[in-house]
Amino acid sequence: MHIDELDTPAYVADLDLMERNIASMAEHCRNLDIGLRCHTKSHKIPEIAHWQVKAGAIGICCQKLGEAEVMAAAGIENILIPYNIVGPRKVERLTRVAKRTEIIVAVDDEITARGISDQAEKDGCRVNVIIELDTGTQRCGVQSPEAAATLAERITDLRGLVFKGVMIFPSHPEARDFLAETIERITGKGIPVEIISGGGTGGEENSKAMGCTETRSGSYIWEGMERLSTSAMLNPERCPCRMICTVVSAPTPDRIIIDGGMKTFASYPPTPYGHIIEHPEAQIYGMSVEHGHVDVSRCAHRFKVGERLSVIPLHQEMALNLHDELNGVRGDQVEVIWPVAGRGRVK
Amino acid sequence: MHIDELDTPAYVADLDLMERNIASMAEHCRNLDIGLRCHTKSHKIPEIAHWQVKAGAIGICCQKLGEAEVMAAAGIENILIPYNIVGPRKVERLTRVAKRTEIIVAVDDEITARGISDQAEKDGCRVNVIIELDTGTQRCGVQSPEAAATLAERITDLRGLVFKGVMIFPSHPEARDFLAETIERITGKGIPVEIISGGGTGGEENSKAMGCTETRSGSYIWEGMERLSTSAMLNPERCPCRMICTVVSAPTPDRIIIDGGMKTFASYPPTPYGHIIEHPEAQIYGMSVEHGHVDVSRCAHRFKVGERLSVIPLHQEMALNLHDELNGVRGDQVEVIWPVAGRGRVK
Repeated sequence: MHIDELDTPAYVADLDLMERNIASMAEHCRNLDIGLRCHTKSHKIPEIAHWQVKAGAIGICCQKLGEAEVMAAAGIENILIPYNIVGPRKVERLTRVAKRTEIIVAVDDEITARGISDQAEKDGCRVNVIIELDTGTQRCGVQSPEAAATLAERITDLRGLVFKGVMIFPSHPEARDFLAETIERITGKGIPVEIISGGGTGGEENSKAMGCTETRSGSYIWEGMERLSTSAMLNPERCPCRMICTVVSAPTPDRIIIDGGMKTFASYPPTPYGHIIEHPEAQIYGMSVEHGHVDVSRCAHRFKVGERLSVIPLHQEMALNLHDELNGVRGDQVEVIWPVAGRGRVK
Repeated sequence: MHIDELDTPAYVADLDLMERNIASMAEHCRNLDIGLRCHTKSHKIPEIAHWQVKAGAIGICCQKLGEAEVMAAAGIENILIPYNIVGPRKVERLTRVAKRTEIIVAVDDEITARGISDQAEKDGCRVNVIIELDTGTQRCGVQSPEAAATLAERITDLRGLVFKGVMIFPSHPEARDFLAETIERITGKGIPVEIISGGGTGGEENSKAMGCTETRSGSYIWEGMERLSTSAMLNPERCPCRMICTVVSAPTPDRIIIDGGMKTFASYPPTPYGHIIEHPEAQIYGMSVEHGHVDVSRCAHRFKVGERLSVIPLHQEMALNLHDELNGVRGDQVEVIWPVAGRGRVK
């Protein structure tokens, strides 16, 4: 199927660029000698996760339990959920997945650990646990090395849990002492720390320098190592994603309207919203819910209703979260149409 | 099922409040003697559309063809698509729907009208068409009464099309002359104008004063007439929507983290993100992709991991667009779990 046969708006990924991004991050982590744990929240598509594992990733990461269920059902075998799993329904689902595949889950509170432990004991299984440290995000995570060590001790006392180590986010060099003291205190209690998980695409060197055994990196798949290292603008040579749109209105010579807005691009004011590959001088200056408003006053080209444009969205991962399908293309041919299987698994 | 049995994050609509909103807008439009055409983009759930029609709406409105297909398949019989339908795949789908139910579609360009006409002729059916006027949105729409009249004439010449009238957006009083002159020019050519469609919840009086036969109103279902007329803040007595969330981390006495972030709430910086019903003094001050960050420093209550909170999202319609299900509750009982059938129908 030719790409022009896709109805619009159609979310498309250039497979050559995507594979290059997958390969280059895998190589980067091999060179650094750090485990790559791909954060699949960036795509939520099991086959892509398998490609990442084949390229050398030690496992994957899912931000929500529902996404982990999707990935486990697709045969992914090593999944970290860096998210506190809380509540009776969730821990029951967690132990179900943990019986089938290698699951590691983060906790930052004894209540959370105890909830998982109770269910694991009931279900006769064991769940691997790491402790999240708040190394600067001011989000989740224990606040001090003492608190981490105390919690590690509790976890080793709880049935059904296997203490595996710690995770940090972000991997800021300023947090080196926090991390080092935590490891020292935990191992000082005779508890081994097998996993030290660092976080964030672009932070691989920092994670390695801080002593992490693995890095949770995800967004590199869409944005490419080059863009990440240079902070260059959205570039068709670097970013695999394109939203194929149709010009649905050309009301004035200076303005065209495309058939994607906030519910297609997940872009909200202020600008920029994206990059139009065929006409880089055209500027998407606004979006309503289902329309994109484009200033074409600097374009020599006179646009007509029905023309198709390829737009690299500013928020590529957030945009994908609105779509049920991702079209993998090679050149101008549609090679695969993936259901975005993990989309909407907010629970 | 008790509301506490829903796993979180769970999007919930209070049915009593929703029904009150449906009834009060229907009454408002009856009192104004203007047709109410409910914009279902606000919910995308066929049963709610049927409730709106039963309450007195003359029909519905769908912003995307895919949503119209869903509504037609659920037996809704009068659907306006105020959106230019462009491209061979779309016009084929449009005529398929138009054969089964009453469809009216907006156009603002002869190319668009001709595309629909060609397909309608091929399929042996007729499609009702109205012309969109740009009355101040600077989005789609013809730019002058002359252009509208010329296009109306073209449409009456094209086979398979039935010219029905015009639509405006927004219904600003400043556009009164534009609208009046357009009607005069079109009727002056002997072409009757049956439909004059005004747009926007809250603009019903303006639409009536400008001579509109109908108003496209949608968001009132979530926000209520009172909130719309007073611009009051998110209020549990007025807004039916709640996102039931769980506290998944309580890392410091001043901060809790809930299990919904940007991919649950469709809220992006800057604040506010929503209103926590049980603790109005708690403030959601930030969101990452899957976490909501809440400042609880002004709360006397000491929060614990596992507590549940009910949050009214700032962007209630955008949030619903991220969810596959909406839970209709009455009091503390879940009365219905609706699939958000039109969600993701971006094409």
